Amino acid sequence: MTVKGTGSGAGREPRTTKRRRSSSAAREGPSTIRDVAVAAGVSVATVSRALAGNYPVSAATRDRVMAAVESLHYVVNVHAKALSGRVAGPVALVLPDLTGPSLAHVAAGVEQEAALRGRLSLVCATHGNPEREDELVRLMREQHAAAVVLVGGAVQDEPYLRRMAEYARALDAAGSRLVLVGRPPLPGDHPVTVVDYDNRGGAFQAADHLFVQGHRRVLFLGGEPHLSTAEQRREGHLRALRAHGVPYAEELDVPGVYTRVSGHRRTRDALRAGIGFTAVVAGTDTVALGALAALRDAGLDVPGDVSVVGFDDVPFAPDLNPPLTSVRVPYEDLGRTAVRLALERGDRLTGDDHVVLSTQLVIRQSVRGR
Amino acid sequence: MTVKGTGSGAGREPRTTKRRRSSSAAREGPSTIRDVAVAAGVSVATVSRALAGNYPVSAATRDRVMAAVESLHYVVNVHAKALSGRVAGPVALVLPDLTGPSLAHVAAGVEQEAALRGRLSLVCATHGNPEREDELVRLMREQHAAAVVLVGGAVQDEPYLRRMAEYARALDAAGSRLVLVGRPPLPGDHPVTVVDYDNRGGAFQAADHLFVQGHRRVLFLGGEPHLSTAEQRREGHLRALRAHGVPYAEELDVPGVYTRVSGHRRTRDALRAGIGFTAVVAGTDTVALGALAALRDAGLDVPGDVSVVGFDDVPFAPDLNPPLTSVRVPYEDLGRTAVRLALERGDRLTGDDHVVLSTQLVIRQSVRGR
Repeated sequence: MTVKGTGSGAGREPRTTKRRRSSSAAREGPSTIRDVAVAAGVSVATVSRALAGNYPVSAATRDRVMAAVESLHYVVNVHAKALSGRVAGPVALVLPDLTGPSLAHVAAGVEQEAALRGRLSLVCATHGNPEREDELVRLMREQHAAAVVLVGGAVQDEPYLRRMAEYARALDAAGSRLVLVGRPPLPGDHPVTVVDYDNRGGAFQAADHLFVQGHRRVLFLGGEPHLSTAEQRREGHLRALRAHGVPYAEELDVPGVYTRVSGHRRTRDALRAGIGFTAVVAGTDTVALGALAALRDAGLDVPGDVSVVGFDDVPFAPDLNPPLTSVRVPYEDLGRTAVRLALERGDRLTGDDHVVLSTQLVIRQSVRGR
Repeated sequence: MTVKGTGSGAGREPRTTKRRRSSSAAREGPSTIRDVAVAAGVSVATVSRALAGNYPVSAATRDRVMAAVESLHYVVNVHAKALSGRVAGPVALVLPDLTGPSLAHVAAGVEQEAALRGRLSLVCATHGNPEREDELVRLMREQHAAAVVLVGGAVQDEPYLRRMAEYARALDAAGSRLVLVGRPPLPGDHPVTVVDYDNRGGAFQAADHLFVQGHRRVLFLGGEPHLSTAEQRREGHLRALRAHGVPYAEELDVPGVYTRVSGHRRTRDALRAGIGFTAVVAGTDTVALGALAALRDAGLDVPGDVSVVGFDDVPFAPDLNPPLTSVRVPYEDLGRTAVRLALERGDRLTGDDHVVLSTQLVIRQSVRGR
């Protein structure tokens, strides 16, 4: 048995040993690659080639091999393959939700960078459910995944921090890597890579842009309290208030979930309450969609009556009515950077495991000066 | 060895045998569940519970088990687990691209239905690359995936049909199921489930809506020739022309890729060529975004000067300028139906393996009568 004790060194197995390994390690399954070779009347190397699809094999040979594979219910041994280096481990990406217009672009970045390096990427939406995250991390250890990338703001409580520390250790022990994207680093010393972006700076720019143009009463439709991205964006907003000497008003600081419905409801309620505001900063562009709809429903013109700034710069922001001024988050770049840092770890001299990418305000037609 | 010959019956293993199985089948790995139990000073059943996370286990016990798991580099045996029924195999979804606003909703439907049934779903973007599809299907066979769902139009050529037939057989032999979503069935008799939607009917409704209101010169921004969805939408459009006695005009029938840039370019070129049209039917809403931008760039009002109809009904269609009339495709429902049909196969009396969901025209403000 050649697979013993290779957990943490799996990724660096020398490539030259692969042919030998894949035949010897397959003995443990119910039918082996040798059984397939005998049934198909070809060599073990030919079966290996036909299954890998990386070498030219005639269609007739491939059919014979596949028929034998099927008749024997042969299942290629996962561990043997991963350890042999014949198939590079995948990169797994864990998102809270698949349908958000912005996180899909992190996934696209992960996928592009993984593909460049000859790896599959698998995406899984866990809706923050710890059991499903546990299951995915376990599955990815078994698959000798190159990295497991968790994306999106998180509530930084004790159970979360303990769970992340556990994932980091478990993945590290399996030769893989935990990468947190759009989340703060874990306190303490853990084998984890962090790729964050400047939530505070982006939110500061959004509010600054409004204050510079004379707005004073700005409705801030923030995220859920304790969510890391929401807290950071709120910090940036409050810093801009202070920088411009604008007094804080509790009635203008309205937390909620990052959905269109919530953006609509909060804007409608603020209008009905008559609290008075000339601009809205939405925590995300999705929230901004709701705000725009509520303002339209109330017969108000954007930007004539009320200005609106979003956060994310979704691809259809220029196509909205009016085209939306928003804070651009480099989502694809976050995904690419996550994979690059995780996979090039062995080649770097320094432990450059925490990077923060910048954000920028993209100015369109949803803001007008007072 | 108890795992032999269970390939196709894996999913129906009686639940009562699970505890016995998981300990006996673990012998083949480098360290066994028994090694972990001894190291942690607990029973095998406790290790199993701590790893599964389905039963209450004290935090201290769980920590002890996890420490032992890590010190021994114990990797839970994938096959044993899948065969024992302790962890249900995942559902895999293969998309051409992760960032499209509509296919993400198929993914969300797959994920909801899989979660209801206690299964993980994994999404992979292969950009139609056959090698990556091969690799994913192989990976999913190894993981005893419950189903592999391929989504999005496909070019129905000989290599494609052969590859699909091979996937269908290989997955069936492994107790899994190939599901094609938004694609026609395979010719011949293959173990495959097909969940399609009414592209022809949707495209007919879009054109019919324009012709009923007096439009005669309608620019049709179709998809790429040979792509199944594109051909079906074009068929529906041509059928509407015939139904209304509108003569076919080659210069109004403009194929291209389903992107915003292509929609913009094709509309701009048609305007420059002065071919004359009063309405645009876009092959997708993304193409419609490009058409709307090109019309705006040319100083034309929608719907005052030109009417526009899209296809997909993306979530932000009501937020566009103007709100876009579009053909609604039940994307989430396609995903849910795919999982339901694949997983309930054993329970059905009839081989109900081909369903077609309907589409509907959602009327907003981007069309005006002539």
